[in-house]
Amino acid sequence: MLEDKNQERTSLAKLGEFGLINHLTKYFTPKNDSTLRAVGDDAAVLKQTDKQTLISTDLLVEGVHFDLSYVPLKHLGYKAVMVNLSDIYAMNGTAEQITVSIAVSNRFSLEALEELYAGIQLACTTYNVDLVGGDTTSSTTGLLISITAIGTANQEDVTYRNGAKETDLIVTTGDLGAAYLGLQVLEREKQVFKVNPQNQPDLDQYTYLIERQLKPEARKDVAELLKSLAVKPTSMIDISDGLSSEIMHICQQSKVGCKIYEDKIPLDPQVISTCEEFDLDSTMIALSGGEDYELLFTVSINDFDKIKGNPNLSIIGHITAETQGMNLVTRANQEIPLKAQGWNAMSE
Amino acid sequence: MLEDKNQERTSLAKLGEFGLINHLTKYFTPKNDSTLRAVGDDAAVLKQTDKQTLISTDLLVEGVHFDLSYVPLKHLGYKAVMVNLSDIYAMNGTAEQITVSIAVSNRFSLEALEELYAGIQLACTTYNVDLVGGDTTSSTTGLLISITAIGTANQEDVTYRNGAKETDLIVTTGDLGAAYLGLQVLEREKQVFKVNPQNQPDLDQYTYLIERQLKPEARKDVAELLKSLAVKPTSMIDISDGLSSEIMHICQQSKVGCKIYEDKIPLDPQVISTCEEFDLDSTMIALSGGEDYELLFTVSINDFDKIKGNPNLSIIGHITAETQGMNLVTRANQEIPLKAQGWNAMSE
Repeated sequence: MLEDKNQERTSLAKLGEFGLINHLTKYFTPKNDSTLRAVGDDAAVLKQTDKQTLISTDLLVEGVHFDLSYVPLKHLGYKAVMVNLSDIYAMNGTAEQITVSIAVSNRFSLEALEELYAGIQLACTTYNVDLVGGDTTSSTTGLLISITAIGTANQEDVTYRNGAKETDLIVTTGDLGAAYLGLQVLEREKQVFKVNPQNQPDLDQYTYLIERQLKPEARKDVAELLKSLAVKPTSMIDISDGLSSEIMHICQQSKVGCKIYEDKIPLDPQVISTCEEFDLDSTMIALSGGEDYELLFTVSINDFDKIKGNPNLSIIGHITAETQGMNLVTRANQEIPLKAQGWNAMSE
Repeated sequence: MLEDKNQERTSLAKLGEFGLINHLTKYFTPKNDSTLRAVGDDAAVLKQTDKQTLISTDLLVEGVHFDLSYVPLKHLGYKAVMVNLSDIYAMNGTAEQITVSIAVSNRFSLEALEELYAGIQLACTTYNVDLVGGDTTSSTTGLLISITAIGTANQEDVTYRNGAKETDLIVTTGDLGAAYLGLQVLEREKQVFKVNPQNQPDLDQYTYLIERQLKPEARKDVAELLKSLAVKPTSMIDISDGLSSEIMHICQQSKVGCKIYEDKIPLDPQVISTCEEFDLDSTMIALSGGEDYELLFTVSINDFDKIKGNPNLSIIGHITAETQGMNLVTRANQEIPLKAQGWNAMSE
């Protein structure tokens, strides 16, 4: 349904490896002062800084992480960058550079890769990040994207997963579960399309969900927001695998327990209505859905007044002693242990 | 012939993504002061430094860059790190960290990945580099390794490709062509093995070639050597695609020409004898073979006395005006234009 109608195809072999890299990166202009040399030498060169450097990397594989039958390549490029920047923001840092390596089979044309890089470029421009390197090679099958993000943070600002303390408040940005539901909607439409290619899907009531799946935005704004509120989080992680899996990482690394309150989990109205339509439990979706790319963090209870009522932030629970375990307090006021049922890229 | 005889197999799906990362990285201990946080958080954290940061990345794809029928996984892990460190050394820098991401199909067992990581770890230990991050996911087919190397260099030491000046001397470390010939020997043995699996190959006369192919060493020592000689190269690149392709990068980026003297190109005796056996031209192999991971650089002619006679360094030519073109001076004293016939990862 979203397939590329462009029938012009330039073979990648015609350009060769260097030609391809030069072609795809020629419109990327470094913007950050810290980027002294971007693409074009053996390595990128970044200026010395009095900050700490943050490095994060993610691999996205066709058929595992994305399905090109409904993911436009431009969106894929954008999202691939978001996934990586999100990790830098989750350290309370500023993303400044990325490297992008791709392996592509010869079923991809130059025009297809231009679309992919248009999405990468849009992400770079929007998030003020420079493309500084990468590698381009052929693959025996499909498309694979490997991105490394480089960022900086003041020593005193870097926020790890292991700093949560008993009585700390647990806070999430945005709302949860929409990206996973967006994927369910797209998968359903794919099945409908297989049966009846003439069918014109009406996706109006799912626009938010689909946008969250296809064009997520990393929370660049949160570090600034917290600074403006004079709040230093005690721990932080990004929500890529689902709330449940992420809070468990924080608890395990901080050696604490937690209580998450079901009725405090922020859900968009489209999540609630679509869960009803699909007969899914919205709490379960928020806990295990993944790909929200919101930030989950803990703050001292003394900061409660600074964050309460902030429309960007939801207090969804608090940290407990490790012995109390990691629990969800249901709407019926029952405590049930959290399970990490997040998406697992290694499952067969 | 080099296949893994170990029949014990642990399925990757059993461990899951987090279990796999933890398992594979648990014996990696950061050694560098600059590594504040390695694997285990959203991003690695590196200490602030008064040096510049170097970033380089490479992607290795099964069936394109390596053939597991004769490349042992431990060697592959080691080589994958070398390929990346070589780029940092080619900037006249010190490599300090790497991230390693892999995509693997379910034909790989845990034991196979342990072998791969044993090679990665050996490389890290030998080259004093810390593993600080990565990603592990499934692939629909084969093995793919994406490594990013992070290094540092003093601002005044960073050496780009674009600094070569007319009359500069062109210098290469080590000798050239052996890695490519090693690959030819291994490919031939693979064909023999297909016809007669009982055949025991006698590879004694090719040991150097095979070692250069299977276990190359990046030239960490060259930056120190040049410093001890008080030589600052004017340009530098590593020889991954063949001498011809690399000197052309330097010339094009420096806007100069060059003369390379055929009789000055350093060749190991095994390269010469094996070229005769395979009926190959050894100069052609050195120019276009690739995977040598030696360093090619230019120095001012005023530094001639400092480097002449050094057993690690061969002066193979000099830089000319751009208008003179890029030429090979043959043993018969003929000038022929260089061609970039280096290995092309994008060819079909």
